[in-house]
Amino acid sequence: MARYAGRLAYEGTAYCGFQRQRVELPSVQASVEAALAEVIGKNIAITGAGRTDTGVHASGQVIGFDAEWQHTAEELLKALNIKLPRDIALQSLREVVADFHPRYDALSRTYLYRLYITPTRDPLRERFAWYRTQTLDVDAMQAALQKLLGEHDFATFGQPPKVTNENTIRRMSVARLEQVGDELQITLTANAFLKRMVRSIVGTLIKVGRGKMSVAEFQAALAAANRSKSGPSAPPHGLTLTHVAYATYQF
Amino acid sequence: MARYAGRLAYEGTAYCGFQRQRVELPSVQASVEAALAEVIGKNIAITGAGRTDTGVHASGQVIGFDAEWQHTAEELLKALNIKLPRDIALQSLREVVADFHPRYDALSRTYLYRLYITPTRDPLRERFAWYRTQTLDVDAMQAALQKLLGEHDFATFGQPPKVTNENTIRRMSVARLEQVGDELQITLTANAFLKRMVRSIVGTLIKVGRGKMSVAEFQAALAAANRSKSGPSAPPHGLTLTHVAYATYQF
Repeated sequence: MARYAGRLAYEGTAYCGFQRQRVELPSVQASVEAALAEVIGKNIAITGAGRTDTGVHASGQVIGFDAEWQHTAEELLKALNIKLPRDIALQSLREVVADFHPRYDALSRTYLYRLYITPTRDPLRERFAWYRTQTLDVDAMQAALQKLLGEHDFATFGQPPKVTNENTIRRMSVARLEQVGDELQITLTANAFLKRMVRSIVGTLIKVGRGKMSVAEFQAALAAANRSKSGPSAPPHGLTLTHVAYATYQF
Repeated sequence: MARYAGRLAYEGTAYCGFQRQRVELPSVQASVEAALAEVIGKNIAITGAGRTDTGVHASGQVIGFDAEWQHTAEELLKALNIKLPRDIALQSLREVVADFHPRYDALSRTYLYRLYITPTRDPLRERFAWYRTQTLDVDAMQAALQKLLGEHDFATFGQPPKVTNENTIRRMSVARLEQVGDELQITLTANAFLKRMVRSIVGTLIKVGRGKMSVAEFQAALAAANRSKSGPSAPPHGLTLTHVAYATYQF
C-alpha cells in the first residue's frame, strides 16, 4: 500500500463541485473514484486540497489517495486518464510520504478569476470567464485588492466549513489584477479560503470598479467582518483553482 | 423590409453544424432562426457564409437575413442576443444592400485549427483544441503547408457540396503554422473550402509531422486530386471559422 498524490484539472461546468454530494449529483470526486475503482479493482476514497464549488474549474487541484499498485506511478496516471471523462484529467502523479495530506499540508491555494469586457458575448470564452459590458475603474479595483493583503478576518467574504470549528482569519499573500487584452484577470493566493470567498471578493470588487463603492468602503466592509457587508457573489464559471503549494512537493 | 448581415460566434460542441439538418438535430441555423422568430414575430430564414460541420466552432461566421424592423440594427442585435442560447452570440449587425449574400459575396474564408501537445490532456482546452502527445516535426509541416498555396484542385482533401455542380479547384492565400506555447495553430485562408477540407489537410499534415509521409509525398497527394490519397480527418472540435472577407463590408 502506498500513498499517491498528483495534480488534477477539470472543467467544472457539468459537476456539483469537487466534493461528493448527494448520490444523484455528478461530482469530480465521484468521477475520479469511479476511475480508480476500475483501474485498481476496489473502492478507494480520494481527498482534495480545495473543495471547489459547483461550476468552478481547476487547472491545479491536488488530490491524494492510498492504493496497492504493482507498476509505476506513471503507469497508474495513464491508466486513470483512460478511464476519466474528457472534462477531467490527472496531469501528474507521484508516490508521497504515508502521512501526506493534500488539504492539511497545503501552504497556500491560488485562484484565478477571469472577466471579459466586450460589447457582445463571446461563446468561445463563456464557459471560463464572466461576461461584463460595463467599463470598470481598474485603478480603483487595484487599490481595493491591496487592502486584502496580509492577515484579516475575512468573515465578510465567506463562511468557514460547517463541520469544523474554524475561525475566519486567513492570510492573503497575492491579490493581483491584470489586464490581458479585453480580459481582467484577478489572481488571489492565501493560506486557505473560506467558502465563496473568491467569488464574494470579485463581486464586491465589481461594485468598486463601477463606482458604486469607494476603496475606503471596500476596506470598511472587510474590517466589519460581517457577511452582510459583501457585494453579490460573482458566478462560479469565471473561477479556476490554479495552484496549491506544499513545502516538500511540486505537483 | 431590409437586409441585415452580421458576425456570428458559436461553440459548436452541441450542434450538428451550422446548417439545419433533420428536425430533431440541433443546428446553429435553427437556433438563430428561433431567436429571430421570437424577436420579429415571424419565421425568417438566414443564410451563412460557411457550412461548418458538426462540432466545429466559429468566431467569425457571417449570416444574413431579411426582416421588417422599426428600430436600429444595434437594437435588433441586442434583442437577438437576449434570445440566443449561451453558446451562440451575434457580435455585430448592420443593414446591407438588398442583394448582399453572405456565401456568394464572400471573397475568402479563414479557418484556425488548434492542436495542443502536452503529456496529459488539458480539460480546459479540450473543447477547442486537439490533444496530441507526439513530438511533431514542425519544419516539415511548414514546408508541406507551403505546397498548398496558390490555385490547386483540392479533390484529395474534400468534396464539393452535393447539390451544386461545382469543381474542386480552390485558391489558397494563407497556409500558416504557428507555435504558441505548447500549441500548434494552423491558419488557412482560401477563396472557398470543400467539405472536410481543413480537417483532411490537418490530418494529413500530422502524418508529415510524425515522419510517416514526406513533404514530397504530401505534394504528390495534393497533385493526385484523389480523395483516397488524404490522411485521416482531424476531429472537428479543434476547428474554428475565424473570418469571412468581403469587398465592401467588414463584419
